[in-house]
Parts: sequence; C-alpha cells; structure tokens
Amino acid sequence: MSAYLELCRQAKRHHNLRHLLTFAAIDRATVMPPKGGEARAEAMAELEGMLHRESRDPAMADLLRAAEAEPLDAAERANLREIQRGHRLALAVPDSLVESRVRATARCEAGWQLQRPANDWQGFLENFREVVRLARSEARHLADASGLAPYDAMLDLYEPGVRSAELDLLFGDLRGWLPGLVQKVRDRQSSERVLAPAGPFTAEAQRALNRAVMERLGFDFEAGRLDTAVHPFCGGVQDDIRVTTRYREADFLHSLYATIHETGHARYEQGLPREWPGQPIALPRSMGIHESQSLAFELQLGLRKSFVEFLAPLIASHFGPQDAFEPENLHRHLTRVAPDKIRVDADELCYPAHVMLRYTIERALIEGEIEPEDIPALWDEQMRDLLGVDTRGDYRDGCLQDTHWAEGVFGYFPCYTLGAIYAAQWFACIQREAPELDSRIVSGDFSAVVGWLDRAIWSQGSRWETRELVTRASGEPINPAHFRAHLEARYLG
Amino acid sequence: MSAYLELCRQAKRHHNLRHLLTFAAIDRATVMPPKGGEARAEAMAELEGMLHRESRDPAMADLLRAAEAEPLDAAERANLREIQRGHRLALAVPDSLVESRVRATARCEAGWQLQRPANDWQGFLENFREVVRLARSEARHLADASGLAPYDAMLDLYEPGVRSAELDLLFGDLRGWLPGLVQKVRDRQSSERVLAPAGPFTAEAQRALNRAVMERLGFDFEAGRLDTAVHPFCGGVQDDIRVTTRYREADFLHSLYATIHETGHARYEQGLPREWPGQPIALPRSMGIHESQSLAFELQLGLRKSFVEFLAPLIASHFGPQDAFEPENLHRHLTRVAPDKIRVDADELCYPAHVMLRYTIERALIEGEIEPEDIPALWDEQMRDLLGVDTRGDYRDGCLQDTHWAEGVFGYFPCYTLGAIYAAQWFACIQREAPELDSRIVSGDFSAVVGWLDRAIWSQGSRWETRELVTRASGEPINPAHFRAHLEARYLG
Repeated sequence: MSAYLELCRQAKRHHNLRHLLTFAAIDRATVMPPKGGEARAEAMAELEGMLHRESRDPAMADLLRAAEAEPLDAAERANLREIQRGHRLALAVPDSLVESRVRATARCEAGWQLQRPANDWQGFLENFREVVRLARSEARHLADASGLAPYDAMLDLYEPGVRSAELDLLFGDLRGWLPGLVQKVRDRQSSERVLAPAGPFTAEAQRALNRAVMERLGFDFEAGRLDTAVHPFCGGVQDDIRVTTRYREADFLHSLYATIHETGHARYEQGLPREWPGQPIALPRSMGIHESQSLAFELQLGLRKSFVEFLAPLIASHFGPQDAFEPENLHRHLTRVAPDKIRVDADELCYPAHVMLRYTIERALIEGEIEPEDIPALWDEQMRDLLGVDTRGDYRDGCLQDTHWAEGVFGYFPCYTLGAIYAAQWFACIQREAPELDSRIVSGDFSAVVGWLDRAIWSQGSRWETRELVTRASGEPINPAHFRAHLEARYLG
Repeated sequence: MSAYLELCRQAKRHHNLRHLLTFAAIDRATVMPPKGGEARAEAMAELEGMLHRESRDPAMADLLRAAEAEPLDAAERANLREIQRGHRLALAVPDSLVESRVRATARCEAGWQLQRPANDWQGFLENFREVVRLARSEARHLADASGLAPYDAMLDLYEPGVRSAELDLLFGDLRGWLPGLVQKVRDRQSSERVLAPAGPFTAEAQRALNRAVMERLGFDFEAGRLDTAVHPFCGGVQDDIRVTTRYREADFLHSLYATIHETGHARYEQGLPREWPGQPIALPRSMGIHESQSLAFELQLGLRKSFVEFLAPLIASHFGPQDAFEPENLHRHLTRVAPDKIRVDADELCYPAHVMLRYTIERALIEGEIEPEDIPALWDEQMRDLLGVDTRGDYRDGCLQDTHWAEGVFGYFPCYTLGAIYAAQWFACIQREAPELDSRIVSGDFSAVVGWLDRAIWSQGSRWETRELVTRASGEPINPAHFRAHLEARYLG
C-alpha cells in the first residue's frame, strides 16, 4: 500500500472512532440523566486520549514524508495537507497537557453551571485560573510549532489561516461605521410601532413549526433529527445530523430562529462531498465558514422581508391568527435593534460588538497581557463603549454568560463575525445571479440560495484553504463592504 | 505495577471504550434516523474489532500467568477469573471470523426487517445460511478451546457453566408437568368471565403511568431514563440505565409489563457493587441471572394479586375509571392462559414451551444435525405438540418472529426459562423471610423484595460463579420445583 493510502486508512479509522465520541456528546447534551456524567466523561476521555496519542505517532511522520514524494492528484494533495495539519497540531501539544486540560475544563465547566446563576465570579475564578494557565501553555506549544504568536496559534485551530492582524483590520473597519449605524437605526426605529406575538406557545406546537420550516429549508429528516438541548447546537455525521433547539413558552421566535440557524449548519454537513468518505478533505472547511452557513440561513435569508412573508402564514397555521403575525409587523419585530447584555440574544447589528469585546479580552489573556481577574473591569468598560450597556456587578449576564472560556475554548468567538461577513458576501453573489430572488423566496422556493451554497461551499468540503475557497466562491477575499451594504440596505433602506 | 493491576487497568480501559459502543447502540435503537445506519455500523465495527484484537493480545497471556502467581484476595481472584474468561473467549475466535459474522448478521438482520412482514422464508434463508455457517464455525472454535460440545460452548457465552445436559434435565422436568397444568388451568379459566380494558390509551398517558410505576419500583431517574424502541430493552451503565418500551394504543398492559420487566433488568444494573468500578467482577453475573431479575419484577411480583391491587388505583388515576380495572378482574385478565404463536406475547405458563422449542432447534442446528431449511417443519411440529397451535405456512409469526437467530445469537433462548425458574426460587426465599409480604405489596412497599434481591444478587455482581451465587442466595442449586409450586399456587390455588 502506498504511504498516502495508509494515511487515508488511518484517517478513516479515526473518523469512525470519532463518530462514537460525537454521538456520546450528543446523547449527553440531549438526553443523558444527571448521574451519567462521570462515566461518560471517563469514557470519552479514554478514546480522545487514544486518538491524540495515535495522531502523534512518530510512524505517521515517516508516512507523511513518504506520501509527499508520491504522485498524487490535486484532491489527494489537498487531503494530505489536511492530514498533515492534524498531525502537526497533535504533535505540538503533549499528552499530559491534553489530559490536564480535559480535567481542568470539566471542573471549571461543571462549577460554572452553578456559579453563573449565583453570580459567583470569585468562585469561578478559582477554577478558571488553571484553565487559563493550561490554555496559555497550549498556545505556547502551538506557537512554538507553527511560528505564530500564541493567540494566532489558537485562532488557527478554528479558522486556519486567519491571523489577528487581519481581524484587527476587519474589526477596525466595523468599529468605524457600526456604532453610528446602530444609533441611526435606533433613532429611526424609536417611532415605529411593533406588536409582539402573544404567547404562551406550547413546546409541542413550536416543535411542529420548527420541523415544518426545516423541511421547507430542505433538511433531510431521513438523515437527521430535531431534538431539545439547553444550548442549541448541530452535530453528527453527514447522514445523521442532529439539530437541537430549546423552547421558551413566551417566545417561539427564539426557538424558531435558533432552529433556522442550526439548519444552516446541518445543510452544510448534509451537503459535504461524498467522494472521499471519512477523509478530512470531505469535512467542513473551518468554523468561520460553518458560521457563514448558519448565518446565511438565520440572518441573510431568515430576516429578509420575503422570507418573513413566506413564514407568516406558516406561523399562523401553527398557533392561530394574531395581528402580530402580519408580515410587515413580524419583520419589524424580528429586526428590532436593541443593545443588551446577552450575546446569543443580540440582534444582527449589535452582535459584532459582543464578539469584538470577547476577542480583545481573550487575546490579551492568552498573550499574558492581562490576568483572569482583570476581565470584569475590561468587560464593563467595553460594554459601555461599544453598546452603551452597564454590566457592572452583573457577572451572570456579563463575563460569565458564555461557556466557551470555561471549556478552554479561546479563539473561537471571532468565527461568529467572520461568518456574518462571509454570509453577506455569499448573498451579494446569490443576488447577482438570481434577480428574482425575493419573489421566489416568498413562495418558499429557496433553490437559488441553496443551489449557490451547495455549489460554492458545501460540495467543496476542505478541498481549498479558506482564502482560496472564499475567492473561488465569491470572486474576492473576505470583504466587509458587503456586510455594511447589507445592513444599511436592510435597516436604512 | 503488579500484573494483576495492569490487567485491571486494561479492563477499565475496555470498560470505558465499551461504554461508547453501548450508547451508540442505544441511540441507534431509540432515535437514530434511517440513513444513519451505515456510518453507525462502520463506527461500531471499528471499535469492536479493536477491542477484540486487544483482548487476544499475546502479552495478555503473560500478564494472566504472572497474575496467577501473585498474592490476591478472594475478590481479586474472582475478578482475575472473569478477566481470564474474556481473554479465553476472545482468543478462541479469530478476528476474520468476527468480522465476517458482523457483516453477515448485519445483512441478515436488515433483510429480516423486510422478509418477516412479507412472510418470505426463502428470501431469509439465502442470508441465514451464511449466518449459520459462521455460527457453527464460531461454536467449533469455542468448542476446540474449551473442550465443550459446540452448542454448549455457545450456551456458555450467555450462561457460563450451564450445559445442555443440565437443560435437558430441567426442560424434561417441565415437559413432564407443564402441558397438563396448562390444560387444567385452561379448563378452569374457560368458565371465567373477564373484562378487557377498553382503549384507546394515548402513548402519553401510558408513558406517565409507566414512569409512575418505575418510580414506585425504585428506579432512579437521576441515573436513567424511559425511552421508546421497537423492541423493548434495557441497556447502559450503572449510573445511566436506559429502559425502553413501546406503545400500542389499544393495550396499555403490554407496554406497562414490558416496562416492569425492563425495570427489573435496570435495578440489577443500578444495584451492582460499586467497589470495583469498570472491573468484570462488578458486572451482572449471566444472562439467566439477568432474566431472573426482570422476571422477578414482571411475573413473580407483577402478576401477584397483591401487586395488581396496588396497581389498579394507579391505572385508574391515569386513564379514568373502568370496570375492567377492578383488581380481581384485572388480575384474571393478566393471568389468562392462551397458547398462541408469539413468544414475547406468551403468558407465564406457555412461555417455556416457546423456549424449549427454540432450544431443540438451535442446538440441532449448531451441532449440524439439521440444516436451516429444516426449521419450518420442526417448528410446526413442536408448536403443535407443545402448545397445540398450528403455524403451518405462517413464517411471519412462526420461525421468523424473533431477531436472535438473524443476529447470530444461538444459545440465548434458554436463559429466559432459566430466569423464570430462578425467579420462582428467589420468591420462595423472599416469602419465607417476609410472611407479611402481600399486605406490604398492596400498599406499595416493595422493600422485602428489593432488599432481598439487592443483598442476594445485585450487590454480588460477578463475584461468584452462577452455581455458587444461586446456592448462596437460596440455599440450593437451581430447582424447578419452586417454579412448579409457584405456578400451581397462582393458577390453581
């Protein structure tokens, strides 16, 4: 067997084994009873540890070198590039650090579950210091192996190829015009009258509506499910994708739009290429590209007037008629801009501020410029500067609101705003190609959107590095001008 | 590290990894969408294959020899015995055979899903021949390694220590008195008037009743769940046990008694010893002992008049009052004896006949005395002889009704009747210890039953071989006289 084929065999094996971790995690997040957590954590750590050790195997380095010299076609080269990347990342971080991190983040995350509702920042800090210490160590190891700065090395885990220098430019651009836009929109909306839908809406009726919308969006229920979880997510494998959402009886739109968001992630996974089963080339490109799919569904498509016109009768058929379901009113309700404390509840215009604030803090934290105890003051200051919101003393809905840092995930937050910028760029292309777009959307025909995303993104898997994928898809590298044009058109047009 | 401790470390590792297989299988049986099957099968086969290869590792033989010579206490010796057994069984069967069997049984089982409803015995036979060929080969390998006869070697997988010679004696005993008893009971019941409960009973109300009964039976919902599956089962790990049942709107008792049965399995698992986490000594003793727990709950406890008296008001509170829910009538309905075609729907008196018939056939099949195409004629003949039921031409509810053989499981069926015999033996002890048993059961106090089972069986794990466990628990080896006395008291008393 050629070295390349042997590497593919190993990649498929790891893909198979990771399948079991994926569904163990999904079961945990959707149905596992409370006492099941300990045994589950041990079982998952056992296999994760084994996979990490195997990915570091010195024999792999020999195979990789040998495969480099073999005659491979372009797709095989791309696959080899991704296999090499996995080996390089695994090699950079010692087993002992992985194990310590698993333990420290499990402890910190479990504590956070209780400390957040109790507004207990000091209690959180006790576990969190160790998480930060280990994350810095991980970042240093990754930096040593890659030559990148520590935070850039962490960013690279989620958005390969993106550096903070580029983020500084992108976010600098946003900071230049977004606050002014938010103010202008708020002034304009202050005189608008908006009716809020009046609940309660039973979870059962909400679930039926969510399923109906997922079906219209082309989600294949033979190859996936809709379940319930505390924090909505999408996970699984191409032919078995689990979308989750949560239900608040007072507000069905929260659940519906979380479902639309996750359905975007899901269709990306269901639409990945089938030519290379279990190979990294067949996996999603990056987390920023992944978020661009969910946000293409939730924001670009989901908040279009034409989509709300499509949605309104479906909503009425599930909950009975209400004046608030009139499309014009519903759209106004859905696009209401109101700075507030919580990221996951933020509107399209305020969301980037939540991301930029976290980016600034987590970068400084990983680079050692600040310490964990400095976070609340920085948080309060930036929330005031960026959104005019006062979070002092409120850790619960301030710096304790997310689970990412407790889980040792530093460098992911920027992907949300990269995704929003990419999604606007995709829709600029889609609109150019399909001038009749909105009249088709009103009638529930999303083929122009789905067809473009499938062709340009889903079917490409990880064949191209992100910058090339973006250029091939849209004719240019990432360009925030489309995001700005989109927001101005939607909110001031 | 001592050789023994190294073996324990490996056992714990396999326990952790098997956890992932267990929950992948539970997810598959409860919620997995149809297209997810292929990737799931590949993922599970990958890890199963790896565990099998590791269990055969020659280094293990050295460790086992070294551990034998180490100073171990009685519990450690028992644990070593179980580790040795696992190694011996794995060593006996070559990897290639395991792989072929996985593929052949997956194909046969998938075909069976369609062939059974179509009454297509010939179609089934095409896949089933290969399953039998591989099962015979497996039995031969196990026989060569153990010195047992081929079928005994298969039996030993599920009920270690039991041989067909012993089963012939036990079943011979049953054959001597059971048909006459069935006839006597049927004559007696023929003049009884029984009201059947009148449905429909919604699945939601049934689920609520099932959960209420599980709670009264002491099932810990913090450490488990009740879910829905096509074939009810119980699976998981000690702190996360999944009980499943199914719902027929016309008949809530089917679902309720399946739930009570599986709750017996579940409480065994939840009650296993905690001193040796992840070690084989802490696992259930055998499948016959396992079935003795489910049948202790379903038949011994569940069909007692006092239990039905306890149950009746609970049923009425979930479905509203009905004359049929009057305890005397309900008990008559539940203990109605009527020979019929389907094993899983059989009553307490007819069930052993279904098992004995399968035992006769599967033993002859594995020993090479008959061929797969001989099954229907033998089936029809024995159904007529043992139960007076005509199954000619009806493969669907005849020899195609079970999934065991399609899955390559030969040697399991006897465990159901061993379990029924053991369960009667346990209750003879419980009754001796607790003369007030029934008045306590009426009031929902099951502590005498649960306390005895916990002390005698659950907390013992696999510390003793089955014969010793049975003798320690009940003062004698397996004795069908208790089963006979129980049936005569219940049905003729």
